[in-house]
Amino acid sequence: MSETKTAITPTRAQDFPEWYQQVVRAADLAENSDVRGCMVIKPWGYGIWENMQRGLDRFFKETGHRNAYFPLLIPLSYLEKEAAHVEGFAKECAVVTHHRLEVGADGKMRPAPAAQLAEPLVVRPTSETIIGATYAKWVQSYRDLPILINQWANVFRWEMRPRVFLRTAEFLWQEGHTAHETEAEALEETQKMLGVYEKFAREFLALPVFTGEKTESERFPGAIKTLCIEAMVQDRKAIQAGTSHFLGQNFAKASGIQFLSRENKMEFAWTTSWGVSTRLIGAAIMMHADDDGMIVPPRIAPTHVVILPVTPKPETREPVLAAAEKLATELRAQKFHGAAVEVEIDKRDIGGGVKNWEWIKKGVPVRIEIGPRDLEKNSVALSRRDQGVKEKQFVPVSDVAPQIVETLQSIQDNLFSRALALREAHTRDIATREEFYNFFTPQNNSKPEIHGGFARSHWCGSADCEAKIKEDLKVTIRCIPFDAPEEHGTCVCGCGRASKRRVLWAKSY
Amino acid sequence: MSETKTAITPTRAQDFPEWYQQVVRAADLAENSDVRGCMVIKPWGYGIWENMQRGLDRFFKETGHRNAYFPLLIPLSYLEKEAAHVEGFAKECAVVTHHRLEVGADGKMRPAPAAQLAEPLVVRPTSETIIGATYAKWVQSYRDLPILINQWANVFRWEMRPRVFLRTAEFLWQEGHTAHETEAEALEETQKMLGVYEKFAREFLALPVFTGEKTESERFPGAIKTLCIEAMVQDRKAIQAGTSHFLGQNFAKASGIQFLSRENKMEFAWTTSWGVSTRLIGAAIMMHADDDGMIVPPRIAPTHVVILPVTPKPETREPVLAAAEKLATELRAQKFHGAAVEVEIDKRDIGGGVKNWEWIKKGVPVRIEIGPRDLEKNSVALSRRDQGVKEKQFVPVSDVAPQIVETLQSIQDNLFSRALALREAHTRDIATREEFYNFFTPQNNSKPEIHGGFARSHWCGSADCEAKIKEDLKVTIRCIPFDAPEEHGTCVCGCGRASKRRVLWAKSY
Repeated sequence: MSETKTAITPTRAQDFPEWYQQVVRAADLAENSDVRGCMVIKPWGYGIWENMQRGLDRFFKETGHRNAYFPLLIPLSYLEKEAAHVEGFAKECAVVTHHRLEVGADGKMRPAPAAQLAEPLVVRPTSETIIGATYAKWVQSYRDLPILINQWANVFRWEMRPRVFLRTAEFLWQEGHTAHETEAEALEETQKMLGVYEKFAREFLALPVFTGEKTESERFPGAIKTLCIEAMVQDRKAIQAGTSHFLGQNFAKASGIQFLSRENKMEFAWTTSWGVSTRLIGAAIMMHADDDGMIVPPRIAPTHVVILPVTPKPETREPVLAAAEKLATELRAQKFHGAAVEVEIDKRDIGGGVKNWEWIKKGVPVRIEIGPRDLEKNSVALSRRDQGVKEKQFVPVSDVAPQIVETLQSIQDNLFSRALALREAHTRDIATREEFYNFFTPQNNSKPEIHGGFARSHWCGSADCEAKIKEDLKVTIRCIPFDAPEEHGTCVCGCGRASKRRVLWAKSY
Repeated sequence: MSETKTAITPTRAQDFPEWYQQVVRAADLAENSDVRGCMVIKPWGYGIWENMQRGLDRFFKETGHRNAYFPLLIPLSYLEKEAAHVEGFAKECAVVTHHRLEVGADGKMRPAPAAQLAEPLVVRPTSETIIGATYAKWVQSYRDLPILINQWANVFRWEMRPRVFLRTAEFLWQEGHTAHETEAEALEETQKMLGVYEKFAREFLALPVFTGEKTESERFPGAIKTLCIEAMVQDRKAIQAGTSHFLGQNFAKASGIQFLSRENKMEFAWTTSWGVSTRLIGAAIMMHADDDGMIVPPRIAPTHVVILPVTPKPETREPVLAAAEKLATELRAQKFHGAAVEVEIDKRDIGGGVKNWEWIKKGVPVRIEIGPRDLEKNSVALSRRDQGVKEKQFVPVSDVAPQIVETLQSIQDNLFSRALALREAHTRDIATREEFYNFFTPQNNSKPEIHGGFARSHWCGSADCEAKIKEDLKVTIRCIPFDAPEEHGTCVCGCGRASKRRVLWAKSY
């Protein structure tokens, strides 16, 4: 047991999964609702999501996409059009069967039997089929292509083992859906959007990610290729943080997206889809939070700076609040990545210690205390959330605003460096079956089951070897990295077959 | 029949409802989906909604609200907690009864009988009950109040007679939900948010609106008071454009939102809710569009200026495009209400006339043509969508950017003035039953059934008189205006009873 008192119990070392739940609660990010598997995203968590949306949306628009909106409910027959797709989602579909309630014989409300739908409707688990049916009407000739559209929406996938942000029945996401004239163009789009995700994870979430292609067993139902970004979090497991799918002509055929080509022939379009979700909030928590709570990367923080006026005596309250207001105004005049620095003055009439700890747990990047003695010295006490919670720098008040942007960027960069260092420390090239199995087996009996991390090891390409390792170790191929050099080796599972490149193995969420 | 050729057939005068559908189609705003009552909001329509969201969201945050997100699916038992509420929504609920699909005996997918839910879930028609249940957990003492939260979400109300934007089964909206310590505070909030809606309608949508309170028969199910903004559109009917509800303690009692008061007693909170939806897009179309298509008020336009390069000969293409790019850069450097002017250069290789008409129909506020002859003269041809489609001003190219903000504001103001003039021309004080009945009866047999407009007439307060007029004329009390002076009169329906103030009567969407 640790000797130092921490704001979060248990600590990461004691029980990582429970620590995660406690951080979510202590930071006031979200909570489980009474509706099974559905979460309530609280203002601090939703504020983070709004900043993610803003950042991603700009990237989408810069790459030529526009937003649109398609129906929430999908006719069952649409879902059935693509065989692999419906098979992939059938087990987790919320199904609407009635369009009215009525009072039953027992005096209670019930779905009105007379209002049963001729065809059930499914709450969208993803929108390829309903959007495909729409594109089929929009596309006549090659001149109507490409279609480059994104949708911000809620989706629903019944979850048996929900975990807030990481795996919830309802979640918020964006889903891009594009249609192209040629295979090459669609492949380029698939790759381009994965690049957008990688850049977003790096610049906004301070998350270094591996990029690559999924194996067949991990592919999106109905896709030809699924590309992904994979992050390592603090328990050394992987989180799939975003996917970009090359759908070939599968969905175009299922939905009838056909066009008259330049050669005057009817052809099926080539489509892609790509998405990231509120799961990214979970990834950011698991990567950056510590035993005192959340640490929000400045670029997604709803508030960058909280000013905590210290007013022990009533007579000092007014000048301290005035100084806080003045400083807030100066800070708000600064631009961090093009938008005003967000400042909150916490004037609540509660103990200074409680207040300070609340903001530590929420993970606001910078805390500034101003009290009567600071006023005398014309300085303030500034704490960075990426440093120890007791650390304070005493800064001349006139220096705070001019330096804030640099401070925020320094916190952002520091979080990224830490994450990268963690990942590098726990990613290893492994050649032998024995070393591989040891790497993924917890080294002692204590909680948590800390295993090695990510392994770069050879794989012969057989789904059987992949399945065997999954069964033995709960370890999967996270991706076939794009940057893996061609090199000769032997499959790590012990089958003895040759392999041309290493793939990335890990346990995952 | 009109002699002038128009881009939209039929014209407003010929068939207003059909004209509306044709404008929506021609402007590429939205379309009906294959899912009954559900629309696809296309990029141009969604871009308008994004600007509405941005504007409203700023107003909400300025008034102390924060965004959060609550579950899409509501347990049936929650909906039942408030009797009037469930009665109001039961007839239009989409009901989820199963959580899995399986292949049936006929080889087709069906809801899996084994996966029937013990308690059905309703796709939210509005979120008072699910949010109330959450607030009940958040609130213990008066210190936890007020809660000032808004949600951006989709909602679903089964519609028998859907009409795109105005009345759709699924629509996008925002719903504010607040909880307060005192009745006075909740009443103030209800009024404040109606004020926000009025200001938003005026400044962003260029819609003058009447503000007032609904009569009991038009109240939100479960509310004590429903306040509303009501706009007149071009066929002189009313559109309810936004509502703000004072819910008293009804929902707090239903959901158990209780707190320990300053006097150390357990009390129920006072709550409000308020919302506007994608219906506002319909209101803007019905008010501002003309027989050539949509006219988008600049403050909600996804694109403010379209530049149409005229390149009849290949050799002039390059200098014309270069001039277009230069002008676009200059325009984008201008700020219209704090954000960069949005400019699109339409370089598509299609006929100039077709292109111009497309943008007229979409209602982009300003069109600028640049051709080789304009280059010689250093001028461009500028057309404002609020003026005749053939009108052009020839403007020195160097004047365009410096004047654009003024031009956009002038269009915005002009649209508002027109709307106000229309409303004033067709709103009348009416004292007698005969005049009232004449006013609301079409004056000839031709389409459309153009009636008088809005009547300010006395009402004794009886629900029977209100119902009688609704039955006879399809005319309802849109609101009891806040600014109606106290004056003595006689109920317009002919009952002979006294009335203390005039109310606003109209046919409505």
